[in-house]
Amino acid sequence: MTSLLREDPRGVLKPFSEVIDVSSADPHQAGVKPISFVRQVLAVCLHPVLLPDDGLPLDVRLRAQRLLEACDGESVGSYTASCGLLQVQHTIAKFITRRDAGVPSFFQNIFISSGSQRALTVVVKLLVGEKDRTQTGVLVPQPGPHTLQTLLDEAGARPVLYRLKEDRGWAVDPEELRLALKAARQCCRPRAIYISNPGNPTGHLQDRHSIEEVIKFAAAERLFLLVDEIYQDSVYGQGIEFVSYKKVLLEMGQSYSDTVEMASFNSLSNSVTGECGLRAGYMELVNMDPDVMLFAETLLCMDISAPVLGQLALELMVDPPKRCDASYNTYAQEILSNQITLAQNAERAWMLLNVFPGMSCQRAMGGVYVYPRLDLPSKMVKKAQTLGLEADVLYCQKLLEEEGLWIGAGCENGSTNGSFHLRVCVMVPPTTLEEVLARLRAFHLRVLDTFSHREIDTSLPGSSVSSRYNRCN
Amino acid sequence: MTSLLREDPRGVLKPFSEVIDVSSADPHQAGVKPISFVRQVLAVCLHPVLLPDDGLPLDVRLRAQRLLEACDGESVGSYTASCGLLQVQHTIAKFITRRDAGVPSFFQNIFISSGSQRALTVVVKLLVGEKDRTQTGVLVPQPGPHTLQTLLDEAGARPVLYRLKEDRGWAVDPEELRLALKAARQCCRPRAIYISNPGNPTGHLQDRHSIEEVIKFAAAERLFLLVDEIYQDSVYGQGIEFVSYKKVLLEMGQSYSDTVEMASFNSLSNSVTGECGLRAGYMELVNMDPDVMLFAETLLCMDISAPVLGQLALELMVDPPKRCDASYNTYAQEILSNQITLAQNAERAWMLLNVFPGMSCQRAMGGVYVYPRLDLPSKMVKKAQTLGLEADVLYCQKLLEEEGLWIGAGCENGSTNGSFHLRVCVMVPPTTLEEVLARLRAFHLRVLDTFSHREIDTSLPGSSVSSRYNRCN
Repeated sequence: MTSLLREDPRGVLKPFSEVIDVSSADPHQAGVKPISFVRQVLAVCLHPVLLPDDGLPLDVRLRAQRLLEACDGESVGSYTASCGLLQVQHTIAKFITRRDAGVPSFFQNIFISSGSQRALTVVVKLLVGEKDRTQTGVLVPQPGPHTLQTLLDEAGARPVLYRLKEDRGWAVDPEELRLALKAARQCCRPRAIYISNPGNPTGHLQDRHSIEEVIKFAAAERLFLLVDEIYQDSVYGQGIEFVSYKKVLLEMGQSYSDTVEMASFNSLSNSVTGECGLRAGYMELVNMDPDVMLFAETLLCMDISAPVLGQLALELMVDPPKRCDASYNTYAQEILSNQITLAQNAERAWMLLNVFPGMSCQRAMGGVYVYPRLDLPSKMVKKAQTLGLEADVLYCQKLLEEEGLWIGAGCENGSTNGSFHLRVCVMVPPTTLEEVLARLRAFHLRVLDTFSHREIDTSLPGSSVSSRYNRCN
Repeated sequence: MTSLLREDPRGVLKPFSEVIDVSSADPHQAGVKPISFVRQVLAVCLHPVLLPDDGLPLDVRLRAQRLLEACDGESVGSYTASCGLLQVQHTIAKFITRRDAGVPSFFQNIFISSGSQRALTVVVKLLVGEKDRTQTGVLVPQPGPHTLQTLLDEAGARPVLYRLKEDRGWAVDPEELRLALKAARQCCRPRAIYISNPGNPTGHLQDRHSIEEVIKFAAAERLFLLVDEIYQDSVYGQGIEFVSYKKVLLEMGQSYSDTVEMASFNSLSNSVTGECGLRAGYMELVNMDPDVMLFAETLLCMDISAPVLGQLALELMVDPPKRCDASYNTYAQEILSNQITLAQNAERAWMLLNVFPGMSCQRAMGGVYVYPRLDLPSKMVKKAQTLGLEADVLYCQKLLEEEGLWIGAGCENGSTNGSFHLRVCVMVPPTTLEEVLARLRAFHLRVLDTFSHREIDTSLPGSSVSSRYNRCN
């Protein structure tokens, strides 16, 4: 939660004591606790005087010692190679191999950067090149991550939208990909397709069959696959598991596994570790021409290198304590607790948002967002039009002003085509989620009441938290 | 020092046990120790369990507490605003005001980034803009930082070289600026002038008069001043002190102080703090249109934010312990020790390099490099030409191969115009410097001997370290 004065700058008293921001994912800001093992090891790396401190678990100190030895001058204050510390590249490659049940990953293909967005920018810049006269197009999902448009603009690429199927839980539909590609060819040279799996902001998780369809499409159309898999550790729901694009690709036979070019992205800012402030992520490049990979290194060189502590935290994320280690129990409990919170929050939000009148929500299977659809009164839509705003933007502005709740307007995730959505991050402590839902409900009912003049059932099923707005009244 | 096998990949035994890299500044890699106060505070911020640990000085713990309170969710794992934590911006502005004896600095003009290079890229991109048909030119010193050319390329600007006066200790000469500008106007639209003060790699420090000359030139020609002042804390020599461009500009009267646009850069990777791996720096913008400043924020937004621990370290760098604090003595000793090492190394290198036959060196007044001139035998220059290399590149390649000493070839710092130079970082422990000088001398004498067939005095004045190469022979 972000503390704000109860008074706005004009001195008007607000009916809330602080703003809650769930418009994007920032777990620690929201009150989720960091993983102790990660923080302990990094603290020792920063201040090696702590190495003999037996108040810290032995495996923490041994790990810190090993990581320091991987740093030049045994200091986290030294530069690293622009694509990261060799030791961390190796550990990430081993993690991917383990995750993909033996499908091999090679350290030479791992590029560490200051966040997955930075790595994505680098690859898009490589695809755009310098000498193209026709603009390079990238197929992007609608809805997709709200940061994507700016990133593609900056890299000089043109986003071409393909629609996800809301009525099928925001699934990827090959027919929509074909339609988008056909349209794209009228205005640019489509070179890549961007996929977010688990879906940001949809919460959809692709199964193997769906992934195969996308890979076949990319192969047939000679598109580069840009796969954002930063929420791979946040998959929930019975019988659902994350399968990586890399694994599926490498198991589809040589005609695919030797040819389809791909970059897969992961990040320290994901849901469970949530170390956004340390700024680190990585990508694995598959089937990229080695000469082009050299350019990736040159582009990353512009950042000199990712922050060293972030790089070390990546290593800790992908190679956590083992059962025999002193830190294991605490580590496992903390991770499990974060995973359970996320899964339960997603379920609770899905359940409640579906009983709000004029709102419906697909069930999330992974990631940190729910993305409910708003069926807004036509009077409100018209009012927004007269103000030159999208109706969901007006909704979110008023929600912030009246309830101190900052939720993302769906139009930021891609054009609306006449439908409206909200982006709600649920990687927050359960009590915060209840407060979010209570504020949202109170506001939503008021909106409907104001614009529709109809009676609405005001009970909040299953909640032990009364609406704060009701309290204020 | 970078450990390498004594054997090269072909199994050839090398006459050195490890490579010494002094081609660029990386103090911790070279063995310079980090500042304890910085590391202690950051360790507590990472792992707040240490807050009550009375093994740490009280001011360290209080400072960590205050910094944590400045972070969202009291965690260094949260995102910050894209131009940095408000608290750190404030502290930097206060530091600049203090440094400039009261000339005010405002936090709104401070932009924190993941290193000074990143901030420089942002400003150059703003100057280049999108709609220019004529390429934007930036006047850059010859010699200048070896990373500058790539940075300008990436930002889309064209470097236009102005010569520094070697025979005047690498001073900036207004006549050279005018000549460069005139030439530049034939091929591009010059929009800015880049200055490095203290000079990288020259070690030159501008006095107030020289700074005024540059400012007058920039004002007359309507050029944006890009001032790299990252070595402002590394000035040595009797009676010499650093004066900032900002101070001089603001004291030159309104016709200058209200009009000349400027960005001044500083970095955590400077010589004394030397925290290159934490990746943080900042710039202060002066007289930039507020609408354009908004774009600077948008561009920095592409990085999301600088690493939070780096930001906090910036605060510690510009607001160190006070005399009354428990950490003060240790802090002051460590800083002084680093400053003395640097000053003595620069002096020692200057003295020795001037007695090597065929070498001469200007006396450095600041910064971390010495930049000796090489008077190479014409046979060697011709040999390099037949290999398609600059003679200084050939020299440095052979030096690395034969002596395991990695020194920068001067041509990387700007075109040679027929003269050759070496870039030697002297921010290393004194014993390392002696080894560097011994290896360099042994190699240099061999080169002269091989290509000139003449007898040379082989005694090394003032050195207690015998040449390692002599040992190997």
